[in-house]
Amino acid sequence: MDKLRAYVVGATGLVGQRYVQLLADHPWFELVGVAASERSAGRRYGEINWVLETPMPSKAAELKIDKLDVDSLPKVDVIFSALPSEVAARVEPEMARRGYVVVSNSSNMRLEPDVPLLIPEVNPDDLSLVKEQRARRGWSGLIIKKPNCSTTILDLPLKPVLDELGVSKIHVVTMQAVTGAGYAGVPSVAILDNLIPYIKGEEEKIVNETRKIFKADLEIYATTTRVPVLDGHTEAIYVDTVKDFDVEAVVELMARFRSVPQELGLPTAPPQPVIPTRAIDRPQPRLDRMAGRGMSVVVGRIRKLAPRKLAFVALGHNTIRGAAGNAILAAELLVKSGLWA
Amino acid sequence: MDKLRAYVVGATGLVGQRYVQLLADHPWFELVGVAASERSAGRRYGEINWVLETPMPSKAAELKIDKLDVDSLPKVDVIFSALPSEVAARVEPEMARRGYVVVSNSSNMRLEPDVPLLIPEVNPDDLSLVKEQRARRGWSGLIIKKPNCSTTILDLPLKPVLDELGVSKIHVVTMQAVTGAGYAGVPSVAILDNLIPYIKGEEEKIVNETRKIFKADLEIYATTTRVPVLDGHTEAIYVDTVKDFDVEAVVELMARFRSVPQELGLPTAPPQPVIPTRAIDRPQPRLDRMAGRGMSVVVGRIRKLAPRKLAFVALGHNTIRGAAGNAILAAELLVKSGLWA
Amino acid sequence: MDKLRAYVVGATGLVGQRYVQLLADHPWFELVGVAASERSAGRRYGEINWVLETPMPSKAAELKIDKLDVDSLPKVDVIFSALPSEVAARVEPEMARRGYVVVSNSSNMRLEPDVPLLIPEVNPDDLSLVKEQRARRGWSGLIIKKPNCSTTILDLPLKPVLDELGVSKIHVVTMQAVTGAGYAGVPSVAILDNLIPYIKGEEEKIVNETRKIFKADLEIYATTTRVPVLDGHTEAIYVDTVKDFDVEAVVELMARFRSVPQELGLPTAPPQPVIPTRAIDRPQPRLDRMAGRGMSVVVGRIRKLAPRKLAFVALGHNTIRGAAGNAILAAELLVKSGLWA
Amino acid sequence: MDKLRAYVVGATGLVGQRYVQLLADHPWFELVGVAASERSAGRRYGEINWVLETPMPSKAAELKIDKLDVDSLPKVDVIFSALPSEVAARVEPEMARRGYVVVSNSSNMRLEPDVPLLIPEVNPDDLSLVKEQRARRGWSGLIIKKPNCSTTILDLPLKPVLDELGVSKIHVVTMQAVTGAGYAGVPSVAILDNLIPYIKGEEEKIVNETRKIFKADLEIYATTTRVPVLDGHTEAIYVDTVKDFDVEAVVELMARFRSVPQELGLPTAPPQPVIPTRAIDRPQPRLDRMAGRGMSVVVGRIRKLAPRKLAFVALGHNTIRGAAGNAILAAELLVKSGLWA
Repeated sequence: MDKLRAYVVGATGLVGQRYVQLLADHPWFELVGVAASERSAGRRYGEINWVLETPMPSKAAELKIDKLDVDSLPKVDVIFSALPSEVAARVEPEMARRGYVVVSNSSNMRLEPDVPLLIPEVNPDDLSLVKEQRARRGWSGLIIKKPNCSTTILDLPLKPVLDELGVSKIHVVTMQAVTGAGYAGVPSVAILDNLIPYIKGEEEKIVNETRKIFKADLEIYATTTRVPVLDGHTEAIYVDTVKDFDVEAVVELMARFRSVPQELGLPTAPPQPVIPTRAIDRPQPRLDRMAGRGMSVVVGRIRKLAPRKLAFVALGHNTIRGAAGNAILAAELLVKSGLWA
Repeated sequence: MDKLRAYVVGATGLVGQRYVQLLADHPWFELVGVAASERSAGRRYGEINWVLETPMPSKAAELKIDKLDVDSLPKVDVIFSALPSEVAARVEPEMARRGYVVVSNSSNMRLEPDVPLLIPEVNPDDLSLVKEQRARRGWSGLIIKKPNCSTTILDLPLKPVLDELGVSKIHVVTMQAVTGAGYAGVPSVAILDNLIPYIKGEEEKIVNETRKIFKADLEIYATTTRVPVLDGHTEAIYVDTVKDFDVEAVVELMARFRSVPQELGLPTAPPQPVIPTRAIDRPQPRLDRMAGRGMSVVVGRIRKLAPRKLAFVALGHNTIRGAAGNAILAAELLVKSGLWA
Repeated sequence: MDKLRAYVVGATGLVGQRYVQLLADHPWFELVGVAASERSAGRRYGEINWVLETPMPSKAAELKIDKLDVDSLPKVDVIFSALPSEVAARVEPEMARRGYVVVSNSSNMRLEPDVPLLIPEVNPDDLSLVKEQRARRGWSGLIIKKPNCSTTILDLPLKPVLDELGVSKIHVVTMQAVTGAGYAGVPSVAILDNLIPYIKGEEEKIVNETRKIFKADLEIYATTTRVPVLDGHTEAIYVDTVKDFDVEAVVELMARFRSVPQELGLPTAPPQPVIPTRAIDRPQPRLDRMAGRGMSVVVGRIRKLAPRKLAFVALGHNTIRGAAGNAILAAELLVKSGLWA
Repeated sequence: MDKLRAYVVGATGLVGQRYVQLLADHPWFELVGVAASERSAGRRYGEINWVLETPMPSKAAELKIDKLDVDSLPKVDVIFSALPSEVAARVEPEMARRGYVVVSNSSNMRLEPDVPLLIPEVNPDDLSLVKEQRARRGWSGLIIKKPNCSTTILDLPLKPVLDELGVSKIHVVTMQAVTGAGYAGVPSVAILDNLIPYIKGEEEKIVNETRKIFKADLEIYATTTRVPVLDGHTEAIYVDTVKDFDVEAVVELMARFRSVPQELGLPTAPPQPVIPTRAIDRPQPRLDRMAGRGMSVVVGRIRKLAPRKLAFVALGHNTIRGAAGNAILAAELLVKSGLWA
């Protein structure tokens, strides 16, 4: 097939750069344009402050950065959005109204009932909410959201546990990478030889988004912290299960967890979405964040602390599985779903 | 009074260096000697690899390092021990047998019923266990232990909560500084841009020591992690209380918590052992670890997440309140107790 | 004597905070007020984002932050300025015109011939330039500048070398702490696991300011870099000397270097402004930046690489000796000079 | 052709791990075995503490680790050595005597006149020294060395400058990554919020190896420092040239520098060995170390400071171009040279 034309808005930020990186050799999508705020518009993409660990894809470097303007968007098949939420709240519905398929990283609208909040392995069926969305809002396009990065990294390993054992209560403490706050979000003076036990709005997102994704009024307690790590969010998790378990069984059910993206062979789907490790001191962000090319969540320290009291540590790449990668995977699911505009 | 003669064994390690730093201008103790393993013995203390953030006290620099030899210990009034546990297990009882007062940082013997495991503000009365200890073991000296650093930083703010509200369950996740592992304990390759969600033996220590200190079979779940921070352990804590509470009341009861060391005006006692902060993004290790000259625990993010579900974040200096400072405070309590040899 | 009333403008930034910290128990100066930009004005100083390693002085916490307004300055004896240069360029001359003594950290006017650019141990006599300054400009007040932080840390150990051996050429490479760029100057994403080999304007400042300070058209080559260190600038320096030397002699001449501030016993003057160390792997920022309470420059790796080719590494605290401390020392010199307004 | 059988000795250390990573999909070499010290011998390679940023190649994980024993080496075509120098000094000559082709990272023998010290783009002709080596030593095998990592990163950009402009003097200051010291070489307590201005033996290596490589008694002054960076050595370099130059010409001659490895299309040869960048604040280790898949040196801040005074900053990946990658490239050159045993 001809590749679908993809457009990235908010393309100069950290998540925007991940979109550009991940779309570079994508078999289905072709990155045909990028847009950003006035400040960068008009420059070549190659001139921006690229801060990923591998060189910028050479084709992307040649693109001219458009000024984001909802009235003069190019003809494309899908828009990947990494806009700041307050901009996204204004612009994305306009895009959808004009017929664009928008797959978005921004936090606005995530909790609206007709908006799919997709972790493709966890709640693929929620994609069909777009039918209701279009009908109700009269849009010819549509909007799909991916959840908060910490939500995604929590919910992926939680899914098989919840399905097999049931979950009555969750206590989670996150240790999140600085890239989660954007390029200038955490000054070095604030985080060198330090950590910050607060991330604005993050705890509420974990609670509310997880409840929406699992369609369950789960009892979740979250404390979110920022640590001097570049990429990779680590989460120490306690789960009170409904059924009792033994540790080996939990390792097994996580290891064999597969879902629709794996069945469909979606290009960005990792072969194994949740990778339990038996190494005593893992997962570690620097060593495990690229598992499954950044799309797998690595789980370690799986312990039974008491009957029906499970503990483990989960780690995922915050700007790949937690952001751009998850959004692209959602778009791939949409392509295969027959729900495309 | 004449100062009591203090001797530091294991004096070249990180905790040993803290002992030396904190004893430098101590009003009651005079550092008269230091001992270390064969490797350092015979050199001047000024020649060691001093790694604290302020220059070595000039008097300490002049001391010659003794080879640790239980058969030729100098005549001193108190021995502060920062020996590796396996060495301590062998040497400390011998010292006590020979009549020495040993105040020790090492983890051996902490759980033995006749050994005081002291956080002077939390369980000062346990000091009197030394009577039983001496009687039972036939020692003319005695051994006092301070708990694991993470235990101490957890138990200090827990004490007033437990006293006022009752505690039925605790979930804790620690984020511990690299100095907790000793000078060479964590290679830089292992921790730069990284964290490690495992510290050998630490979770068991938190559980077992806290139960001993509070004389209660508390339900405690602990996950301990290492983060790229130099000094200061941070702990994200969830407490299920017996009585319900409001947040302001918890702030108040922590803020006004005082105990025997404050009443006695012990020199190393901080005016306020637990300092609740209202700043939304505190405590932070770099900014708060020196509160109360490293002897206070700073508590923030005090939240009520549900009825009888308290959450907060606690931070303390791991080698001061968590180690040498707490040990010196325990020795001061002993001086005032009338239990001295 | 009654203490002189000191006022800090630009008091909320990193250098402003150092002024406040260093003035807290100053024997000659009393901090009576602080000013900042509109954003902070009206709040108590205790509410700002204090980021130094020790708690904020309690008296400072009570001060109300004034909005900086040159037309309604309080009656004070000396103004310590840590304003951004573009603001300083506008405001400081107005202050001097209105009769205020301004001691400034900002880079504007540093190279003007009638402005003392003071490292009190290096060029104390330049203080008398203020006579010319006032006469020429018709000011009843005056302005004194301290040099760039890297300049100061280079020039202090250079002074005795230049005096004794003569200097024909200097190659310097700096490794500068992130606090040198201000609180938000270096994002953590930019510097974790990284360094940046460029600091805007810094190389020119080192060259031009050093030439002015030594009144010599020295051949200086500078490369300035930013490293993930919080405080303390390190400089690797090669000096081509005019006379030949042996290393011991250089150690000696640095060690015994004293100057007017030491002779006058100025309160902020370190007993030994330049401290050569014989430890093979020093100076190191974390271990040596607080030498002389942050006012000494520690020098190590003193080597003779060839005849008349001297190499060494110098380190100083960038916001104490490199900024606020040096400015306060300059003010103390002024107090003793008889040149006071 | 059939792939050549490669064997890595010292395979569990950081450089050993890089060999294993880079040989994983190598078109000419097949990794058939790994050896290490007694401690690891007998375990599967998959069980070691792998610390590279990408997962261990799955085929390598299956290899059993041999105990290094020169008397029972397997039949292989080439041995890549990452042994500690003192072990290498004993073992490598024995291997060569027994007919093995040894390509080594270790520092022993580097300066012996009949041992090629190869940067394949800089001194490819030195490979022919092996003829003399075998003749003189009576070896049926041979030994090739790669230089110190900092030497390589200096000499690559120096080569075109030296060829075109001549070089009379070099001042260099390195800022080296912690992986250069091996896994446990730099404790985190030693380097967090810090740097260390000394690396044992490193300055001499830069001077002596560069002189050997360029066959010139160059005047070189080196200061080597360790910084809290994981991978990538940065070097601030001043070069006194013989001919005068303009900056654009230097950019050009670096950019177009190609050599034998590029002409021969060696698999590990980067298309462009030296990449000058015009970005004002580059090269930076985190962003540039993977240029040319870790085999290019990125050069920035190219400046003319005075007539015939060139300054620039160079950066290369210390364990790829600086170690294992350079060694593999040397082996590739040997394959094509007709000098193979």
